[in-house]
Amino acid sequence: MIIIMHPQATEDEINAVTDEVARIGFRPFMNPGVERKVIAVLGELDVRKADLVEHFQSMPGVARVELISDLWKLASRTYHPENTVVKVRDLEIGGKQVVVAAGPCSVESEAQTIEIAHQVKAAGARMLRGGAFKPRTSPYSFQGLGEEGLRILARAREETGLPVVTEVMDTHDVDLVCKYADVLQIGTRNMQNYPLLKKVGSTGYPVLLKRGLGSRLRDLLMSAEYIISEGNHQVILCERGIISFEDSTRHTTDINAIPVLKHWTHLPVMVDPSHSTGNWQYVGPVAKAAVAAGADGLLVEVHNDPQRALSDGPQSLKPDKFAHLMEELKRIANAVDREI
Amino acid sequence: MIIIMHPQATEDEINAVTDEVARIGFRPFMNPGVERKVIAVLGELDVRKADLVEHFQSMPGVARVELISDLWKLASRTYHPENTVVKVRDLEIGGKQVVVAAGPCSVESEAQTIEIAHQVKAAGARMLRGGAFKPRTSPYSFQGLGEEGLRILARAREETGLPVVTEVMDTHDVDLVCKYADVLQIGTRNMQNYPLLKKVGSTGYPVLLKRGLGSRLRDLLMSAEYIISEGNHQVILCERGIISFEDSTRHTTDINAIPVLKHWTHLPVMVDPSHSTGNWQYVGPVAKAAVAAGADGLLVEVHNDPQRALSDGPQSLKPDKFAHLMEELKRIANAVDREI
Amino acid sequence: MIIIMHPQATEDEINAVTDEVARIGFRPFMNPGVERKVIAVLGELDVRKADLVEHFQSMPGVARVELISDLWKLASRTYHPENTVVKVRDLEIGGKQVVVAAGPCSVESEAQTIEIAHQVKAAGARMLRGGAFKPRTSPYSFQGLGEEGLRILARAREETGLPVVTEVMDTHDVDLVCKYADVLQIGTRNMQNYPLLKKVGSTGYPVLLKRGLGSRLRDLLMSAEYIISEGNHQVILCERGIISFEDSTRHTTDINAIPVLKHWTHLPVMVDPSHSTGNWQYVGPVAKAAVAAGADGLLVEVHNDPQRALSDGPQSLKPDKFAHLMEELKRIANAVDREI
Amino acid sequence: MIIIMHPQATEDEINAVTDEVARIGFRPFMNPGVERKVIAVLGELDVRKADLVEHFQSMPGVARVELISDLWKLASRTYHPENTVVKVRDLEIGGKQVVVAAGPCSVESEAQTIEIAHQVKAAGARMLRGGAFKPRTSPYSFQGLGEEGLRILARAREETGLPVVTEVMDTHDVDLVCKYADVLQIGTRNMQNYPLLKKVGSTGYPVLLKRGLGSRLRDLLMSAEYIISEGNHQVILCERGIISFEDSTRHTTDINAIPVLKHWTHLPVMVDPSHSTGNWQYVGPVAKAAVAAGADGLLVEVHNDPQRALSDGPQSLKPDKFAHLMEELKRIANAVDREI
Repeated sequence: MIIIMHPQATEDEINAVTDEVARIGFRPFMNPGVERKVIAVLGELDVRKADLVEHFQSMPGVARVELISDLWKLASRTYHPENTVVKVRDLEIGGKQVVVAAGPCSVESEAQTIEIAHQVKAAGARMLRGGAFKPRTSPYSFQGLGEEGLRILARAREETGLPVVTEVMDTHDVDLVCKYADVLQIGTRNMQNYPLLKKVGSTGYPVLLKRGLGSRLRDLLMSAEYIISEGNHQVILCERGIISFEDSTRHTTDINAIPVLKHWTHLPVMVDPSHSTGNWQYVGPVAKAAVAAGADGLLVEVHNDPQRALSDGPQSLKPDKFAHLMEELKRIANAVDREI
Repeated sequence: MIIIMHPQATEDEINAVTDEVARIGFRPFMNPGVERKVIAVLGELDVRKADLVEHFQSMPGVARVELISDLWKLASRTYHPENTVVKVRDLEIGGKQVVVAAGPCSVESEAQTIEIAHQVKAAGARMLRGGAFKPRTSPYSFQGLGEEGLRILARAREETGLPVVTEVMDTHDVDLVCKYADVLQIGTRNMQNYPLLKKVGSTGYPVLLKRGLGSRLRDLLMSAEYIISEGNHQVILCERGIISFEDSTRHTTDINAIPVLKHWTHLPVMVDPSHSTGNWQYVGPVAKAAVAAGADGLLVEVHNDPQRALSDGPQSLKPDKFAHLMEELKRIANAVDREI
Repeated sequence: MIIIMHPQATEDEINAVTDEVARIGFRPFMNPGVERKVIAVLGELDVRKADLVEHFQSMPGVARVELISDLWKLASRTYHPENTVVKVRDLEIGGKQVVVAAGPCSVESEAQTIEIAHQVKAAGARMLRGGAFKPRTSPYSFQGLGEEGLRILARAREETGLPVVTEVMDTHDVDLVCKYADVLQIGTRNMQNYPLLKKVGSTGYPVLLKRGLGSRLRDLLMSAEYIISEGNHQVILCERGIISFEDSTRHTTDINAIPVLKHWTHLPVMVDPSHSTGNWQYVGPVAKAAVAAGADGLLVEVHNDPQRALSDGPQSLKPDKFAHLMEELKRIANAVDREI
Repeated sequence: MIIIMHPQATEDEINAVTDEVARIGFRPFMNPGVERKVIAVLGELDVRKADLVEHFQSMPGVARVELISDLWKLASRTYHPENTVVKVRDLEIGGKQVVVAAGPCSVESEAQTIEIAHQVKAAGARMLRGGAFKPRTSPYSFQGLGEEGLRILARAREETGLPVVTEVMDTHDVDLVCKYADVLQIGTRNMQNYPLLKKVGSTGYPVLLKRGLGSRLRDLLMSAEYIISEGNHQVILCERGIISFEDSTRHTTDINAIPVLKHWTHLPVMVDPSHSTGNWQYVGPVAKAAVAAGADGLLVEVHNDPQRALSDGPQSLKPDKFAHLMEELKRIANAVDREI
């Protein structure tokens, strides 16, 4: 940690800071002679540094406090250089294979879900996605089938062998969802729902953690840290679009996030081009971009009748379009020495 | 609802849309002769329109679907022109008085909390704010005292008579927090935690709903709608800063939100300048701006020793600075025909 | 154009709007029976509609005015379905080949520029990029060599045969830059410098128009429209990153922009991953993503000694890394049926 | 400047950095013993530091480079603690008086301009604003009357005594605008048009510099530095709204900008609530907020017939509403010990 004083900081203010550094058990170290006084804080800093930054930030005469190491430890590649591979039944996420999870936004009926599951499997998808508990902006929108939806997903898994990823929205439902799902999805609106993160961390189930719409990558990693610090290392990160001023697409796919996350963390990274564009016409190009940039997997919405879908119809691909996209994605995966 | 077709939409596509409008019980109505075909959807549309937008959006040949009425009903000023006044014990929020809630970010000890409560009351605050359950970005940061913190807040209320507003983060804790608090706060990270919104909606307690960092005002009103649609009309909205590219302050206070919300909804609006700036030096000017723009109240962090605060020290005012600010705010309140 | 009235709009207000529609030569057309009155404006609307939107927007009782056609005509794919191919000497931009323009951020010396030009050509670049007039945030930063820099670029073209793209910042310099350059670049800070757009539009030279950091795609197309409406159809659009709250990269590459622009306009689209990431480590993955998503070309900064570069060193690739990237890009290009 | 090395940086990389620090004439200074190596750069750093940051940023093993002093010198309050007061004829901007400049968006005719000028003067405005050269997003929108508009503004000044502020968009027009205007306005789209900044810097005329829609406050100050470094200290900064994801208003008024700029710089700060909201209904509350937060002045659009205005009608106040607002603003100004 480095403490940078204001140009007008007094001797007394500087002394108060160095005294405080010593009081809490560190050694202050001051640079000689530069325009502004800069105090380095020496010693074995643990992960409670975030508090110390605020602590010193509020002292008189302090202009700025800079951390010189990451705030996440368990998620950091610095301390864990090799890639984490998350195992979901026979699947490996974060290995050579680019894993595509596909399916309807919401589970609507058993017939529909099983039909779509067969279709996406035939096209090469390795996991089934579908929502039983649906977070909807409006209280008047379809809220999902709940446990009935979970049962349908489990039936579709039996039929197709595809493992299931589905969202859990409340600590109260975690045990229930664990009964049916293979991967617990934390949705964008709950990325910083800390009781929920701790709870899924305690299950040991693989977790797909979606980035918040307005969350920086460092905040995403801090949320991953909540899960891992409960003892659950099976975390998959998911870029699903961020908010911006651009209004031609629902959200802005942050393609930069892929190399940045790969640089910062050992966790696998997936991308959801359906939500990040909000428009099926743009799903294909963005899915291809994600694989080219190094994503370990994709979440793609597929619906056999998007016009009658109970949620997110406009961003869903029809099965034939999805099959065509999978062919294109295989070529991109090969071009980056991976496979689908 | 208005459905705008692509310039190249075929007759078949147009017919499919008008058939579908009729099928679901509305009357389609088409304008003659303009460049692009536009289909008006006539009939008594209920609040499930959000789904219909997506429904038609995904039909072939449709360029855009525009709603022509609000998606929120219970929160809308259109259907409820007079201001809602939320009652908290003897206080009225949304009336002539501008209500200032002040106190520490986190409850740290009984002595500290009671001392600060007396100080802010003496300066003119009408409500005590303080966190017992703390959502912290890092799992290694101080997470709050939990129920012990709630007990301390209740003790401070006994001592000072100030009603208490405090955050609840999980459905599991709602009943517990109701035992001690006067107003339930939904924090920025939980604005779209729908199970939690429904749960606090079912309590009948006044709710202070903070805007999500990356949430549009229309989304804030949809979240308020979740609470009200459970039968709880006691909702106070709170602007607390949004994310943007500007990095000189922690967040960007959206001062425009005050007149926009006053235009759109009958609910009272408060502003939290401590979180929206992240820097005590900027709290005063922004607090004054909020009152001048028509805010019904403020949340201000006050700490008697910000340098040793366990959270958010840099944005906390010392009691003497807070007392000085209250004097300034009274002058602003008078200048807009209100009082503090 | 559709005019949507407030729910509380009076008969008089509605009549005033329909009268005004008629007065300016259009036919008003009102839908029967919906909750809100909606007035369609019929007739041959020309491209001055932007003014009409504002005109009606300010009338009493009007809630919203919606255009139902694009504001750009000459740049729109609606009226010009086939792709525009921009010719730069023997090169075609917007055809089957993905064109990579590479070179130093700033022209620093003749020896350096010619050396880099040979290196990027050997690696497969088809165009040389380099700045002679440099827009720099600080007045104390290196501002470019000016005409001397242009002369050096022309020399490098003689030596290598690579056409030259370079920025022009002021109407006053356009004629000068035309003497030396093959493509005139309009930088991100000048995307809405309308006198400059008109001036380059009048030259007939190919123009590379970079998106403004805070500009929506519709604004980018309106700026292209300025150039085309002066008679110059040789416009190449360039996504180079937008501002957002994310701070791990200098800007956020809007990968969605590629399919959106391809949908909306016939103009070719290039991507600048060097500026959009600001970090050479992320240039490769984002460059690959851009080609996979359908970009017609790339702008890549290459410097033989990035540590001593006079500008933008951190985002420049060394020639050997660039050559390696070009090999990777060729594989991606093949995977989308293109070539480099 | 402080150079922070990667945790895995090698001895050789560290030595290369310290050698380079010495080579360019500074003294490297390294902290002993912390987790990451941190190298302080000692010596008299001049304002070309922005280049040095990039220089070191690109060296192998370097994680981050932090400046420890401002990049602006002439605009900084550190080196010029007292407020700058800009003189415009008899007016003082930055003194006790809050200066309101009002008038139409565009100059449309002599009769209209003079009538509005009389009206705003009667209501208490001290300066006339109006556009003769208009930057418009669409090439098909009204582009302003040009020199004829300037002549009309000068006539209105003769009639009313109000000094005139008007925009200049191109270096080519600066001399012409100087013949008629009292204050040269640099619009939001030209905040980083450096040739234009240098040119207005060379005139010695007061300059009203509007913040770019996507520009951070530090970039605004760097642009001010361009003007001041040409010898012109008469610079007024203007917050006029920034882009964000919020779409209920045209832009987001960054009210935080007022105290931040007052902290960082000695230059006066004005606010334009007409452009920052885009809606006349919100202009009043935001104008009051700006004065309460410490703004030195306001720019307000007033039009006697907003429905027929040739630009920006929706955000213009009618003269009677403006007069009413001025009465309200006087009360706010008094409440912060200023006057209008």
